[in-house]
Amino acid sequence: MNDHEMKLIQDKASVLIEALPYIREFNRKIIVVKYGGSAMTDDVIKESIIKDVTLLKVVGFKPVIVHGGGKEISHWIERLGMEPRFVNGLRVTDEATMEIVEMVLNKVNKDLVTMIEALDIKACGISGKDGGLLKVRKKLSNGEDIGYVGEITKVDTTIIEHLLEDSFLPVIAPIGMDEDFNTYNINADDAACAVAKGLKAEKLAFITDIKGIYRDVNDPSSFISRLNIAQARSLVEEGFVGGGMLPKLNNCIDAVVGGVKNVTILDGRLLHCLLLEIFTDQGIGSAITK
Amino acid sequence: MNDHEMKLIQDKASVLIEALPYIREFNRKIIVVKYGGSAMTDDVIKESIIKDVTLLKVVGFKPVIVHGGGKEISHWIERLGMEPRFVNGLRVTDEATMEIVEMVLNKVNKDLVTMIEALDIKACGISGKDGGLLKVRKKLSNGEDIGYVGEITKVDTTIIEHLLEDSFLPVIAPIGMDEDFNTYNINADDAACAVAKGLKAEKLAFITDIKGIYRDVNDPSSFISRLNIAQARSLVEEGFVGGGMLPKLNNCIDAVVGGVKNVTILDGRLLHCLLLEIFTDQGIGSAITK
Amino acid sequence: MNDHEMKLIQDKASVLIEALPYIREFNRKIIVVKYGGSAMTDDVIKESIIKDVTLLKVVGFKPVIVHGGGKEISHWIERLGMEPRFVNGLRVTDEATMEIVEMVLNKVNKDLVTMIEALDIKACGISGKDGGLLKVRKKLSNGEDIGYVGEITKVDTTIIEHLLEDSFLPVIAPIGMDEDFNTYNINADDAACAVAKGLKAEKLAFITDIKGIYRDVNDPSSFISRLNIAQARSLVEEGFVGGGMLPKLNNCIDAVVGGVKNVTILDGRLLHCLLLEIFTDQGIGSAITK
Amino acid sequence: MNDHEMKLIQDKASVLIEALPYIREFNRKIIVVKYGGSAMTDDVIKESIIKDVTLLKVVGFKPVIVHGGGKEISHWIERLGMEPRFVNGLRVTDEATMEIVEMVLNKVNKDLVTMIEALDIKACGISGKDGGLLKVRKKLSNGEDIGYVGEITKVDTTIIEHLLEDSFLPVIAPIGMDEDFNTYNINADDAACAVAKGLKAEKLAFITDIKGIYRDVNDPSSFISRLNIAQARSLVEEGFVGGGMLPKLNNCIDAVVGGVKNVTILDGRLLHCLLLEIFTDQGIGSAITK
Amino acid sequence: MNDHEMKLIQDKASVLIEALPYIREFNRKIIVVKYGGSAMTDDVIKESIIKDVTLLKVVGFKPVIVHGGGKEISHWIERLGMEPRFVNGLRVTDEATMEIVEMVLNKVNKDLVTMIEALDIKACGISGKDGGLLKVRKKLSNGEDIGYVGEITKVDTTIIEHLLEDSFLPVIAPIGMDEDFNTYNINADDAACAVAKGLKAEKLAFITDIKGIYRDVNDPSSFISRLNIAQARSLVEEGFVGGGMLPKLNNCIDAVVGGVKNVTILDGRLLHCLLLEIFTDQGIGSAITK
Amino acid sequence: MNDHEMKLIQDKASVLIEALPYIREFNRKIIVVKYGGSAMTDDVIKESIIKDVTLLKVVGFKPVIVHGGGKEISHWIERLGMEPRFVNGLRVTDEATMEIVEMVLNKVNKDLVTMIEALDIKACGISGKDGGLLKVRKKLSNGEDIGYVGEITKVDTTIIEHLLEDSFLPVIAPIGMDEDFNTYNINADDAACAVAKGLKAEKLAFITDIKGIYRDVNDPSSFISRLNIAQARSLVEEGFVGGGMLPKLNNCIDAVVGGVKNVTILDGRLLHCLLLEIFTDQGIGSAITK
Repeated sequence: MNDHEMKLIQDKASVLIEALPYIREFNRKIIVVKYGGSAMTDDVIKESIIKDVTLLKVVGFKPVIVHGGGKEISHWIERLGMEPRFVNGLRVTDEATMEIVEMVLNKVNKDLVTMIEALDIKACGISGKDGGLLKVRKKLSNGEDIGYVGEITKVDTTIIEHLLEDSFLPVIAPIGMDEDFNTYNINADDAACAVAKGLKAEKLAFITDIKGIYRDVNDPSSFISRLNIAQARSLVEEGFVGGGMLPKLNNCIDAVVGGVKNVTILDGRLLHCLLLEIFTDQGIGSAITK
Repeated sequence: MNDHEMKLIQDKASVLIEALPYIREFNRKIIVVKYGGSAMTDDVIKESIIKDVTLLKVVGFKPVIVHGGGKEISHWIERLGMEPRFVNGLRVTDEATMEIVEMVLNKVNKDLVTMIEALDIKACGISGKDGGLLKVRKKLSNGEDIGYVGEITKVDTTIIEHLLEDSFLPVIAPIGMDEDFNTYNINADDAACAVAKGLKAEKLAFITDIKGIYRDVNDPSSFISRLNIAQARSLVEEGFVGGGMLPKLNNCIDAVVGGVKNVTILDGRLLHCLLLEIFTDQGIGSAITK
Repeated sequence: MNDHEMKLIQDKASVLIEALPYIREFNRKIIVVKYGGSAMTDDVIKESIIKDVTLLKVVGFKPVIVHGGGKEISHWIERLGMEPRFVNGLRVTDEATMEIVEMVLNKVNKDLVTMIEALDIKACGISGKDGGLLKVRKKLSNGEDIGYVGEITKVDTTIIEHLLEDSFLPVIAPIGMDEDFNTYNINADDAACAVAKGLKAEKLAFITDIKGIYRDVNDPSSFISRLNIAQARSLVEEGFVGGGMLPKLNNCIDAVVGGVKNVTILDGRLLHCLLLEIFTDQGIGSAITK
Repeated sequence: MNDHEMKLIQDKASVLIEALPYIREFNRKIIVVKYGGSAMTDDVIKESIIKDVTLLKVVGFKPVIVHGGGKEISHWIERLGMEPRFVNGLRVTDEATMEIVEMVLNKVNKDLVTMIEALDIKACGISGKDGGLLKVRKKLSNGEDIGYVGEITKVDTTIIEHLLEDSFLPVIAPIGMDEDFNTYNINADDAACAVAKGLKAEKLAFITDIKGIYRDVNDPSSFISRLNIAQARSLVEEGFVGGGMLPKLNNCIDAVVGGVKNVTILDGRLLHCLLLEIFTDQGIGSAITK
Repeated sequence: MNDHEMKLIQDKASVLIEALPYIREFNRKIIVVKYGGSAMTDDVIKESIIKDVTLLKVVGFKPVIVHGGGKEISHWIERLGMEPRFVNGLRVTDEATMEIVEMVLNKVNKDLVTMIEALDIKACGISGKDGGLLKVRKKLSNGEDIGYVGEITKVDTTIIEHLLEDSFLPVIAPIGMDEDFNTYNINADDAACAVAKGLKAEKLAFITDIKGIYRDVNDPSSFISRLNIAQARSLVEEGFVGGGMLPKLNNCIDAVVGGVKNVTILDGRLLHCLLLEIFTDQGIGSAITK
Repeated sequence: MNDHEMKLIQDKASVLIEALPYIREFNRKIIVVKYGGSAMTDDVIKESIIKDVTLLKVVGFKPVIVHGGGKEISHWIERLGMEPRFVNGLRVTDEATMEIVEMVLNKVNKDLVTMIEALDIKACGISGKDGGLLKVRKKLSNGEDIGYVGEITKVDTTIIEHLLEDSFLPVIAPIGMDEDFNTYNINADDAACAVAKGLKAEKLAFITDIKGIYRDVNDPSSFISRLNIAQARSLVEEGFVGGGMLPKLNNCIDAVVGGVKNVTILDGRLLHCLLLEIFTDQGIGSAITK
């Protein structure tokens, strides 16, 4: 090793040392990572997210992944000659569709498990059916029955707690059962929120494809880095928050009220967004806290 | 309640009392149940099997289910406009096929979980990918590459042991990964055998659609109720064992050699075949022991 | 096995399956069984009770037996040339009598232990002296001193909890000590009630030789299957409850008030009365609940 | 407190300090104390023994008492108008006698429990029936059937281990069951020896009414304070050991061979003989070691 | 052993038996012993104290030693050519002095550890720095900065609890750190008081060189053996308590208010003062209780 | 954050990700770090070492520090007007010297504890006296008595194991006691080696002020990066290894023979040498393995 090489790896060592206080702070704490949407279709982003999560696991955090499956679901529905149908942005899910949704979500689930195991970390992929994790009732869309779309009524995180205790990294597909044990599709944000509340997680991170929350979506300088519940609520009430972000922000508020210490919206397109958020003082996303 | 009704339920109580010694004997012991083939397509049989397994769980045994998915796989392959192809009885499994196989097996897996949870027993459905349970290498068919068909090279039952300790009923789909983390289909009998050996199970029960082992398959009176490894081996060598039964019998021998106390071939068409086997002195299937 | 035999054992399997929800419901729960009186002198009944209790143990319940010794005590007192003497139904217990009472109760205790061990279940017979389980003071009968008859003042169920945790079936003789460590005879119903309260038992079952509670003891149709505390109390106040039943009913009320979920009066003459009570929806005795 | 009183209690403190190395040495170790014979009939001796044992318990040892019941048994047999009968020093024990023997031993057992509880130490009195502690077969006396006199065939000390772990002082009556669950009387020395071996006790102390082992029983100066197995065996072979002592010495040898570190014959007539043995360097009894 | 010798050791056994109720009472309880001042310079006293503490350890108590170092500190300061300086009885502690104070206290600490280990008891000597046990801020003396003299602001007894759980005898030097991790000297009485409160100790014993508290320090008959907080407070208010005793009495009051059951001032010059206090009914020191 | 800043912190995140496999490999493993000599006198180096060790702790390793105190000892001996004296490189240690050595080593010990606690990691500083960690006998120097210089005869790592289990970072001063509980100075390399063997450590790292082992100390290109025991031994035998390095290399060989997987000589002058060694494939020091 010549002097230049030595200098380079010493710089790397310094980076590790800088991470020390952040690692110490989150040690043994639960971080729920909701991962879905377009961030799932880019292989580079996917690998970046999974590597971040496994690093968190290895240095002593307790990450839990809740994933969606959006585009893959539509892809398979089409391959099977059916037509995806949406009402108010919610997928109309008849029995035949639900069957496919479940198959695809479980496929996505095991793909993530595979990626994590390939990094030599023990993962366990389950759905909200396993151990009775997620119980739901039918969710209507403006009063309209859109099929097997579920609204979470009860969360029993015992199975996740056992997996964490036994050192596995839990990967969760957003599927649940109603009282009659019918299968339902659940919005992945809702599932992540419910799981984080059930676990009294330290942090819930939504990996998205936007930068975060803006007071004025057209003005980059209006980016909001940190806001408390009261501020988040008035933002909602004042109508500043636009379409796709509204339910997510409501989910954030709901999670914080439900006992999650910190809920953050992260931009998945930034490589290693999770590490950047956790290993820097100011973080990089929009965080909602009490 | 009149006298007749009272008599009837007293008879039922006597049946429970009769079960006492058998329950005591198997208490806290592991029973791996391989469930697949045509027994999976009949709803009455399916319900009977699942109820038997949950009863075993509730009275203190530690059952583990390993399932197949046979007919559903072909069904979905056809629905997707592909053609199932077999070489020497083994499914030729290219990448596109493997994708479907995995989706269907996970669907079957969660269906079983649903049925068990509906009986108020906590189940957890996993595949051989989770926790690195099943590691494989490519299996050739008479030297021919038939795709992602795996031969088990390593079993790590840690995840199952944790689930049992945490009181879950594990349900396992026969899928594994090779050294490069590619996904492989595994014969369900092979998977059950490997899992039973890894767990040093008390019993491995193959639920089939035949009555058991016959010295002469055309002579019902030649039914063999109990045989030791030596007898099983000479049966194989003498060529008495026909087509479909041969690999299964070899699996039985392999399991007993590998530390499983008792391997039994059961006729799934007999309702409650598992209970009949376990709660009667002579059992009802063909049992191989050391 | 011919078809008829097969049908018979399949029916038996169905009975086991029917028991599943009841077993699940009581799993790991404590059931205190008070067993005494004439039910102890009939060998068939005795065996039926003991088998029921061991079955409950084997399928995962936590039964505890508290027994009396009535007729055997008088028998030995007479054999020793003394005369049993009662005041208001309570045995006058001088020191010489107490010595015999204790010997006989311990004999009965070990007889029950023997029966349970013969069924291959680990039992441990103790009295209220062991581990300071039952502390008493002298009980007067209408102000009259009738000797070493104790009224329970303190219960320390630590020893029973340890035995249950260590998987033993505790069998308890109703004897206690006062502050000066004199030995006292305790009414077995009182002892059972105190133990059940101390353990916050799920159920306390009194095995008796009557069918249960009647509004009009001469009218079989006035049998009361289920009543809450308020109803039980008004029954007592209205004077509907006759002689022997009155203290027992008061004990029932006391137990429910003290935290026992369900107290049931069962007819020991019905074979397997405990199983019938627990493994049927409506039960067969008179149950008092909150 | 005047100076003289102060001096007195300081002397007492010094005594405690002297005990320190002995307490430390036996800390958490199991000492089985066999207590029976005439030492049981003298109240002063009895109290001295029980106080010694409880002190050992309190300072951290794990004492276990195995008791006999000799004279009380004969007393009650006579009170019931039967005649004690002995063949070769063994009580002829028909069924009627066995019934009384068991009652009396359990009475003695609970008397000891009472004394210990009065010293505020938690005791638990059991017999060899409880938890299947002692299994026996019929013992013949020179080929003659003398009834329910048992020879120990199997010891399962699980119940004692649990009681010790749960901080109870176990008190054990020498009664066992044969394969058919008949009740048998066991020689208390045999029972103590079997229990000590089963527990791999540090010490087995026989409280007797003789001073110990003498080379010449008529010569006090021939007292043997310490001997190893070889020496003990040659003593037996040379015929130096007389009547009552012979089986006891054989028991000692058997215990040491079976894993007990030190077996000591103590003179119960010396007040606090157990403390004197344990808290002095040379001890006061005759000790057999490997 | 002749009769006289036997009589002597039996008397000793009686002394042990007398100790039984006291040992039982304090079993598993925490006793913090503050040991310092002139009692440390007399080797006979030192050995007496250490033997007492180890005896308490061996019979099941959980003693913790907090020590001072007074005279040794001055000795070394002088050896190094510096001059000890005091303001209002508090040592002026500049950086150079603090360095020496810490070295000497750690030396005293390890000397005590050595003495305890020589008695075959496992000890662990730590200071208030280890495990962040004692956090301080600068203590002013009547507004004057006297250097690194600390006032305790936070106690984290986790490290002591772990040592006790792991069966070590903790020996603690009164040194702490402030928020900026500077080293401070702490008054040993203050440290003992803080540790006892943090551990919710059963007893805090100050070993001193006075007999205890007197209403009139010149009148031996005015010795106060037991007083409650209210009495202690009025003693302080009424000005009866003189110089050196005042802060100690305030410490006693503070400890009792903070949850310590009993705080006692003992005269270290009485050999075995700790045992005399604990193993006699009236004790020998002045005890403050709630 | 502008794009450049973002790029910079993303690069840092990549560094963390690169560390993942190394962290995973050493997870929960024990690393003994011997730290002493001139590396202790440079504040920058000291801070770099301590930060490295705490990082290892935080990411899940189990580091243990064994330190020396060389120059500080001589400094204080001189300050006290005594003259350091060496025979064959070993300090002549009379009683007066030993007193100072112990004080200084404990001072150094607590200084390291302070630095670690300031990084918010719980440390516990002990010496080889605590818990009887290091037992020694007098070490002669070529037959000459050089005072209280100890050769380790027995290691009892119980106290370290408890501290690790309780999540403390143990810091150990190389002092021990002989059979008569006299205090001895121990060579820090010897102490580290003994501790590493006692703990069956994964790695023992000697922080030195040389680069490592050279075949020819004057030829930088003869640096040896990895050698097995056989190679190390022949290096010793062939006389290639010079003065100061010889005992160290013998220590390395001894440690590997004693069960330590990897012993490495590191150059403390390279900042973050520990991290560079552990988080790079080839390491930076000279490693001896089996």
